[in-house]
Amino acid sequence: MLSVGIMSGTSLDGIDVALCEILGSGTDTSVRLIEFDTYDLPQAIQEKVRQCAANEFIRPADLSSLNFELGELFADGVKQICQKAGIETTELDFVASHGQTIYHHPFPNNEYVANTMQLGESGVIAARCGCTVISDFRVIDVALGGQGAPLVPYSEYVLYADKNKSRGLQNLGGIGNITIVPNTMDSNDIVAFDTGPANMMIDSAMKYYFQKNYDKGGESALSGEFIPQLQAELKGHPYLKLPIPKSTGREMFGDDYVASILERYKSSKAEDVVATLTWFTAYCISYHYYEYVEKIHTLDELIISGGGSHNKAIRKYLSELMPEVSILVQEDIGFNSDAKEAIAFIILANETFHKQPSNVPSATGASKPAILGKIQYAP
Amino acid sequence: MLSVGIMSGTSLDGIDVALCEILGSGTDTSVRLIEFDTYDLPQAIQEKVRQCAANEFIRPADLSSLNFELGELFADGVKQICQKAGIETTELDFVASHGQTIYHHPFPNNEYVANTMQLGESGVIAARCGCTVISDFRVIDVALGGQGAPLVPYSEYVLYADKNKSRGLQNLGGIGNITIVPNTMDSNDIVAFDTGPANMMIDSAMKYYFQKNYDKGGESALSGEFIPQLQAELKGHPYLKLPIPKSTGREMFGDDYVASILERYKSSKAEDVVATLTWFTAYCISYHYYEYVEKIHTLDELIISGGGSHNKAIRKYLSELMPEVSILVQEDIGFNSDAKEAIAFIILANETFHKQPSNVPSATGASKPAILGKIQYAP
Repeated sequence: MLSVGIMSGTSLDGIDVALCEILGSGTDTSVRLIEFDTYDLPQAIQEKVRQCAANEFIRPADLSSLNFELGELFADGVKQICQKAGIETTELDFVASHGQTIYHHPFPNNEYVANTMQLGESGVIAARCGCTVISDFRVIDVALGGQGAPLVPYSEYVLYADKNKSRGLQNLGGIGNITIVPNTMDSNDIVAFDTGPANMMIDSAMKYYFQKNYDKGGESALSGEFIPQLQAELKGHPYLKLPIPKSTGREMFGDDYVASILERYKSSKAEDVVATLTWFTAYCISYHYYEYVEKIHTLDELIISGGGSHNKAIRKYLSELMPEVSILVQEDIGFNSDAKEAIAFIILANETFHKQPSNVPSATGASKPAILGKIQYAP
Repeated sequence: MLSVGIMSGTSLDGIDVALCEILGSGTDTSVRLIEFDTYDLPQAIQEKVRQCAANEFIRPADLSSLNFELGELFADGVKQICQKAGIETTELDFVASHGQTIYHHPFPNNEYVANTMQLGESGVIAARCGCTVISDFRVIDVALGGQGAPLVPYSEYVLYADKNKSRGLQNLGGIGNITIVPNTMDSNDIVAFDTGPANMMIDSAMKYYFQKNYDKGGESALSGEFIPQLQAELKGHPYLKLPIPKSTGREMFGDDYVASILERYKSSKAEDVVATLTWFTAYCISYHYYEYVEKIHTLDELIISGGGSHNKAIRKYLSELMPEVSILVQEDIGFNSDAKEAIAFIILANETFHKQPSNVPSATGASKPAILGKIQYAP
C-alpha cells in the first residue's frame, strides 16, 4: 500500500512528510521510504500555534479556522511529496496525519478534565487529496486514562526490535522522548517516556540571543562553556523526579520558562547559556537512563533522531555522559532520522486500517490497548 | 444493526438520544425507533457553549477540555438509552454523534477560511461505550465548498419520499431548516436550506422576560398581540434576501441580536414581543416558500418537527400564513418529532459505515458528494 505520513511537532520547525510503501501489519510490517521532505510552517501559523500552546486567550473562530488552515497546509504537503515521486494523491491508500498539537493536558486538574487536541482538519486533506485520511491518534489513549504519548513505541517495536541488542530510540524534537526496545522481543517489555526538553529550550534561547530558529550543528553551544549555577538549577527541575512513564510539553519547558532563565542569567555570555541548555538536553537523557532504565534493561545502543540529531553538541555531551552506550544516528543503521516520526504515524495508521490496536499501555499508561485514530474517507 | 444517534442542537435544550435498528442502506434503508429520550445539558456546559458561539475570548484549554467533557456527556446518554432498552453499549454496531456545534462559519472572510467545529470527543464515547463511533459529519462538506448544512435532507429523502405527495420537512430547533422532498422521487430535486430562527429568538426573549428556557406550548405568544413596527423590521432582515441554499446560526440570530431588539422595544409588553418573534419564525418559513420554493415544487404537506413543533402559536401562524398547505406534525404520519434529528444522524452514519456519500450537494452547495464523518473504532 502507498501511504503518506505527516508530522508537525511542537518545535514548529516544519512539516515532515514521508511517502512510503507499507506491506503487512503487526510484526510482519515492512516499510520502505520512497520520498521525504520538510515543508515550512508559515510564520503566521506558527504564531497562532504558539499562542494556543501558551494557552493565551483566543476566539473559538481562530481555532476553528486554524484547524482548516492547517488542513490545507498538510494537504499541500501531501500533494508536493506525491508530485516529487511522480504519483497522484488519489493513488494513495491512506494519509496518516498527526496534526498540530494545540493543547495537551493528559492529567485532570481542578479546572479541566484530561484532554488533548491536535488540529489540521482531516476532512480538508481528504477533500483536497481524494484519499482516505487517518488522524487524531492521541485522543482515545487519553480517554482511556493514558497520556496520549508517546505513541512512537509501537512503530519502534515494529522497526527496531533485535534479539541481539537492547536499543534506546531517542527522538530529539521540541521535546525529547525515548523508547527502550529490549532484546526480549516482547512488546510488553517496552519502556517509553518523554525525557524532557530536547530542542525547545535551545531554540528559544537562540531566538532570543541571535534571532535564529535553532543552533545549527550545535556551533553556538560548542563555542560556549557550561554555567555551573545554571546546571545545578536545571538538575533540580521537578520533571526529573516524576516516575516514568511520563510526558511533557511546551507548557513546562516553553518560552515562559526559558525567558525566566534568560532574565536571571542576563549577565552570562549567550554561548554559555546555550551550551548549558544543550547540556541539559543530554543530561535529562542520561539522568533518566541511570535513574530508571538501567536497572531493567542495559542499553547497547542509543539511536538518536529528529532535528536535534544534527546538533553535534548534544551528541558530544551524550557520549560524555553515557560512555558505555554507543550513540548512533538513524543513518548508522540504515534509517532516515528526519523521516522517523512521519513514518511512525504511517505504521500506526496502517494498524488502524487493519483494525488493530497500536498504543503501548506500558508507555502511555492507558487502561487498555486501543485502535488509534479516526478514519475520514475520500469524498 | 443496532445504533444510537446523539444530537445536541444550537438551542441547547438537551441531548436527544435515539436507539434504532437500521437495516440496508440508500433507498433500501429501514429504520425502527426502539427508544428515545432527551437528557439535560448541565448549565455550566451550556454557558461554555454559548460563550464559544458568541465567539468570546476563551483559552484553548477551555475548548480542548470542553471537547472531552461533552464526550463524557454524550457517552452517558448512550449508556442511559441502552440501559432503558436493556442492552449493553458493546452490542451497538455504531454510535452516530453529531457533536455540539461550537462555531460554524462556512463562508471565508478577511480573517478566516471557511470552517466549522463540532465538539464531543468521539474517542471518549468509544472508550466509555466500547463501540465504534462516527462523528464530525459537517467538516468535509465545508472543505468541499459546501455550507456543511443542512445534512438532514438525505435522511429525509430516505424516509419521506412519496410519489403521491410533495412534502416539506420543517425542523424547528434553535434554527429552522426545511427539506423539500418532491414527488419526483429524485434526490437531485431535493431543495433544502435554513429558514432562519425557529426557537432561538423566542427562547432568548423568554429567558429575558420570564427567566424561562422556552415558551411552553406557545402560551405566552398566544396571549400577546403582534407589534407591527417590529414585524416590519424583522421582515427586512438581510438573511431573507440571500439566495437558497443557505444556512445560519447563533452568530446571526443569537442573544446579541435579540438583546438589541428587546432594548429598542422595552416599552412594549413582553407577550407582544414574544408573539411577534414567534410570528417571525412562521413568517420566515412562509416567506421562503412563496419566494423561492413554490415556483419549483408545490407542497402538499409541511411536516414540522423539533422542539418548536410543540409550540401551538407557531403552528397557528403557519396555518394562517400558508393556508393551502397541510401543516402536520411527525406524529400525524407515524414518526416521532423529537427523535427526528437523532435518527437522521444514524442514517448518515449508516451510509458512512457502508462507504456511501450522504450529503446533498444541491442543499449544501458542496462541489461533490462526500462520505460524511470520521470513524473511531472501539478500543
